[in-house]
Amino acid sequence: MSFARLQEEIDRLQNPAVVGLDPELTHIPDAILEMSYKKYGETLEAASLAVTEFNIGLIDALYDIVPAVKPQSAFYEALGPYGAFALQKTCEYAKKKGMYVILDGKRNDIGSTAAAYSAAYLGVTKVGSKEYLPYNADALTVNAYLGSDGIKPFIENAVKYDKAIFALVKTSNPSAGELQDRLISSEQDRGTGSLSCSPRKIEDSETIPLSCNTGEPSFCGVPLYTLVGDLMEEISKNTINKYGYTCVGAVVGATYPEEAEFLRESLKNTFFLVPGYGAQGGSAADAVKSFDKNKKGAIVNSSRAIIAAWKKRGGDYKTAAREEAIKMRDDLRKVLKY
Amino acid sequence: MSFARLQEEIDRLQNPAVVGLDPELTHIPDAILEMSYKKYGETLEAASLAVTEFNIGLIDALYDIVPAVKPQSAFYEALGPYGAFALQKTCEYAKKKGMYVILDGKRNDIGSTAAAYSAAYLGVTKVGSKEYLPYNADALTVNAYLGSDGIKPFIENAVKYDKAIFALVKTSNPSAGELQDRLISSEQDRGTGSLSCSPRKIEDSETIPLSCNTGEPSFCGVPLYTLVGDLMEEISKNTINKYGYTCVGAVVGATYPEEAEFLRESLKNTFFLVPGYGAQGGSAADAVKSFDKNKKGAIVNSSRAIIAAWKKRGGDYKTAAREEAIKMRDDLRKVLKY
Repeated sequence: MSFARLQEEIDRLQNPAVVGLDPELTHIPDAILEMSYKKYGETLEAASLAVTEFNIGLIDALYDIVPAVKPQSAFYEALGPYGAFALQKTCEYAKKKGMYVILDGKRNDIGSTAAAYSAAYLGVTKVGSKEYLPYNADALTVNAYLGSDGIKPFIENAVKYDKAIFALVKTSNPSAGELQDRLISSEQDRGTGSLSCSPRKIEDSETIPLSCNTGEPSFCGVPLYTLVGDLMEEISKNTINKYGYTCVGAVVGATYPEEAEFLRESLKNTFFLVPGYGAQGGSAADAVKSFDKNKKGAIVNSSRAIIAAWKKRGGDYKTAAREEAIKMRDDLRKVLKY
Repeated sequence: MSFARLQEEIDRLQNPAVVGLDPELTHIPDAILEMSYKKYGETLEAASLAVTEFNIGLIDALYDIVPAVKPQSAFYEALGPYGAFALQKTCEYAKKKGMYVILDGKRNDIGSTAAAYSAAYLGVTKVGSKEYLPYNADALTVNAYLGSDGIKPFIENAVKYDKAIFALVKTSNPSAGELQDRLISSEQDRGTGSLSCSPRKIEDSETIPLSCNTGEPSFCGVPLYTLVGDLMEEISKNTINKYGYTCVGAVVGATYPEEAEFLRESLKNTFFLVPGYGAQGGSAADAVKSFDKNKKGAIVNSSRAIIAAWKKRGGDYKTAAREEAIKMRDDLRKVLKY
């Protein structure tokens, strides 16, 4: 199934990295912007053209050394409908060059609506007697707050079309822990609204990463992020591929290496997408906590540091991006002892 | 601030209802589809034209009796980039007719990316020396799993441009409770990963809706959905409008009336968006649990039952939608004793 293709591309290039295509206009060199403004004026259409050109240049500079790109949908949506064309063209060009496309949309909704999102990014839309692939990404990021019936429509298309999803588990942002780190009842408890405090032995499945006195008779919950991770692995367990991974991956920030280490240990069949490396402060040593013993099962993202490398390095943006991507690759290779 | 405008429109029309524009192609009458196919063939462009025409007809039929529409982004995204134009035109036409536009996108991301989503739907995008409003909705639905730094960029634009957001609190779907109903530590606990079980008195702020033995010495958490609701009210408390509501509303499903009743009691400054009425099984009596004592502070959504009413009622789809919307309005008025 789908993460197999990604793993194979990672292995072939010996580079477990994905480049985030987050084309804020401030990341785009003036020459590209000016060419676009000359054609369409200072419009959203011009900005979308500039984004497309910028991305094509980046993909050309990276496709033979980086296995995957991750367009961040928000930056395309901020350009209105023309931005949607830029996103579509970016996905199409990256795939044409053999790259694996992870669309970062963090989509989520109830079942029937989740099915429409799933059609948009991983599946097909029927129009009369015809079928179309609206964006045709290889994988999509999703948010699991609505529970499993909001995730299943994505799994269906993942299985049907050899695609995959990454559910947010432990995100890389500073306030990630506000909800995700809190202890939550590991037993579902709908309708009663309470858990008794009667002392009982902690089950293995409730082990939590840090200081809970495992084995002591006391009541203990699990951090919300571990529960979400467990739920995602559980509902996708029938989709394990030849490398041991299901079609539902997890987003696990490099900025929280202890949590990543725990998750790697507990989610044996879950492929990790690791944001937070580089500009957000995560190191290669932090990021590799998300890899399994065979140095597989994860991919590390860097966006700004690569696509806007020309601002620091000077010169052509494509050369700068390639040099920075090589630096990241070698950084990861070194820590992973490839 | 922003929900004031919505409340005033609700009051003027004596109708606390929003119509969900979820234009699955199967909801669109054949005549509209055929006209579109004649023009563009059986393509996504044709489907997007059909959606736009369908929505314009619905808005024409409803704008003088219904205060708001809620386009569900997924159904537009499933049509690819042309669908984004259909969405934009729908928002624009509804606003031109004086309707309040709640874009249902359930967006979420880390701070800098959340800012791009916020620009797309509630704010402006700068291109050179110009500023554009990409979609210009009045409100956007969001998901708070990433914590407050993913919500603040939306609050900023809400304050700046008189807009609003609705955060998912208790959703209407069958598996909503899988995560949302579980008990979670009401104290933030990052880094320790455990809570002691030492008996202590329950604080007022920890009261939970159902059977927790309040006042008894025992350890008790709060359901996750109440914690999310509390967090959203807390981070928006400086934005309370003249009717007592902040710019951060809550999505609270009519399908869970007990939880809605509890939330209404505890979130005194939070405006509720109530899905689940009608096709999903929630009654008017269920939906009105989300209103305050002055019969304000909430709006009830119906999608399919109204936009596809022609399938059951026969005849022109606009007339059928209007009749069904009047039925819903009168149903709500009756239970609210307007």
